[in-house]
Amino acid sequence: MKKECYIGVDVGGTFTKAALLDHKGRVLSKAQVSSRGFSNKRYFADTLRNMSLRLAALARIPFGEISAMGIGLPGPIDSERGVILSLTNIRGWNHFHLAGFLEKYLPFPVYVDNDANCMALAESRLGAAKGARFALCLTLGTGVGGALILDNGIYRGPFFLGGEVGHMPLYASGPVCECGGIGCLERYVGNQAIARRARQIFGKAIALEEVSRLARRGHAKAKKVWQEVAVCLALSIAGIVNVLGPQVVVIGGGVAQAGNALLVPLRTRVRRHAMRHLKNKIRIVRAALGNDAGFLGAALLAKEKLDTR
Amino acid sequence: MKKECYIGVDVGGTFTKAALLDHKGRVLSKAQVSSRGFSNKRYFADTLRNMSLRLAALARIPFGEISAMGIGLPGPIDSERGVILSLTNIRGWNHFHLAGFLEKYLPFPVYVDNDANCMALAESRLGAAKGARFALCLTLGTGVGGALILDNGIYRGPFFLGGEVGHMPLYASGPVCECGGIGCLERYVGNQAIARRARQIFGKAIALEEVSRLARRGHAKAKKVWQEVAVCLALSIAGIVNVLGPQVVVIGGGVAQAGNALLVPLRTRVRRHAMRHLKNKIRIVRAALGNDAGFLGAALLAKEKLDTR
Repeated sequence: MKKECYIGVDVGGTFTKAALLDHKGRVLSKAQVSSRGFSNKRYFADTLRNMSLRLAALARIPFGEISAMGIGLPGPIDSERGVILSLTNIRGWNHFHLAGFLEKYLPFPVYVDNDANCMALAESRLGAAKGARFALCLTLGTGVGGALILDNGIYRGPFFLGGEVGHMPLYASGPVCECGGIGCLERYVGNQAIARRARQIFGKAIALEEVSRLARRGHAKAKKVWQEVAVCLALSIAGIVNVLGPQVVVIGGGVAQAGNALLVPLRTRVRRHAMRHLKNKIRIVRAALGNDAGFLGAALLAKEKLDTR
Repeated sequence: MKKECYIGVDVGGTFTKAALLDHKGRVLSKAQVSSRGFSNKRYFADTLRNMSLRLAALARIPFGEISAMGIGLPGPIDSERGVILSLTNIRGWNHFHLAGFLEKYLPFPVYVDNDANCMALAESRLGAAKGARFALCLTLGTGVGGALILDNGIYRGPFFLGGEVGHMPLYASGPVCECGGIGCLERYVGNQAIARRARQIFGKAIALEEVSRLARRGHAKAKKVWQEVAVCLALSIAGIVNVLGPQVVVIGGGVAQAGNALLVPLRTRVRRHAMRHLKNKIRIVRAALGNDAGFLGAALLAKEKLDTR
């Protein structure tokens, strides 16, 4: 039997990370390159080809044992056809048939999906949501990324825009969001909004890492910052809990570094809003895979797409 | 080939309605009885048996041509096993294996589901959401019922509580809801809350039918009542739109009688909150099947369960 390996690629705004996984999901090798220059599609293809060769060499496996590549990108992706619907951080890729293009340069099939979907898949198969057929995964950072695992599969919806919890409106009027909506959750709990609120509460500029550190030591103002974040997050999360009843809610991203200062009030708040039958059934936990979730999920996507082809 | 017919039963708090459908979803006969006395399970079973005989006789078909019965009930139902998880309006039925019990009295299989799920199925197959694989269906009345059609099937979730849009929280603090949550949508747009607000705005008690009639004629205070309802409803609906991207949102129930006085501001508001890519893709329409949706959906449930058995 041929040993099957999969490459997962996480295309970020600054760096692109990749790893080679075996059929059991174990990482055999890793690589990272700058994302600069990727608006040149030919250059992107060459970079991925070189990365693939390097990953195989590092893992000491023949190039021919790589069965497929999965790629996670920050934007809505038609993952059925491998077409990018829109990308904000790389120019000229909108409506681009990326999978078909890359397959001219690579000797294996290529699958493409939204990066939050890839992360959720990784947490679902290998991480904090393992064993749950229904999960909500949030990535709290500059934005609020979201993805849903429903009945053990990524939920993409009819428009490939599934899981955008960061764009659930909190208020009827409020700041206009980049997404085109109004009063979106992301406007209130994105890290810039939290930093602004922390500055108000502390009366001076303060790094969120410092707010987290102080909160862990019981500092009242620092705790207040995270409690307010929890109040907002809980409204959207509880909305999804009462409508979809996920078994687990996974919280990742830089803002999740706040740890229990955020998670403890968040659990209390979500439980307050949850329906009686759900209050004790929903677990809210930290993501387990950190920054690796992107490329791990992309590789798992490739494996699962190939398995069900 | 045997002609296949299906009975759909909608068990309400006051009346229980039933109909016999042919395999194309056409209604052959209808019946209605009082729901009084249904806490006596044996009496309920006898009533359903008598109704079934009557429906067959009215339609002039042999009793043996009835292939299955579907029943919609107001509460969370384990539709896989046919077990009622909880019912508020009929005592003593919690955790009762209704399907198995009834099958002792009836010569065909019985399938049970939540009534909002049955209505959504009917609107999806025969009504306002026909042709859409992803739909959100709301029933606005005393409460706010909700159900989701995802990828052409009823979404039930791991706890059989799917689609409870009426229990999405609007505010972090607010009235405690019967569901056990706080600040639920239903507390603000249930018909009692609307009637209370109408009384404030008009300075006297006024029936909602009258508010609707006045709004249609352009009466400012009446329009204000429905606009405020639209603001609240739009927050929850837009939240679901941005997370699940349904192609159509179906609005039914007594409150939907307000018609365009409610639907026009609702469409505007949901579009304001929706993500750019979704703004022009989501249709918000009135339910097409009215009070028949319950028994129609229950019959369709029976047909589809039997077909996929």
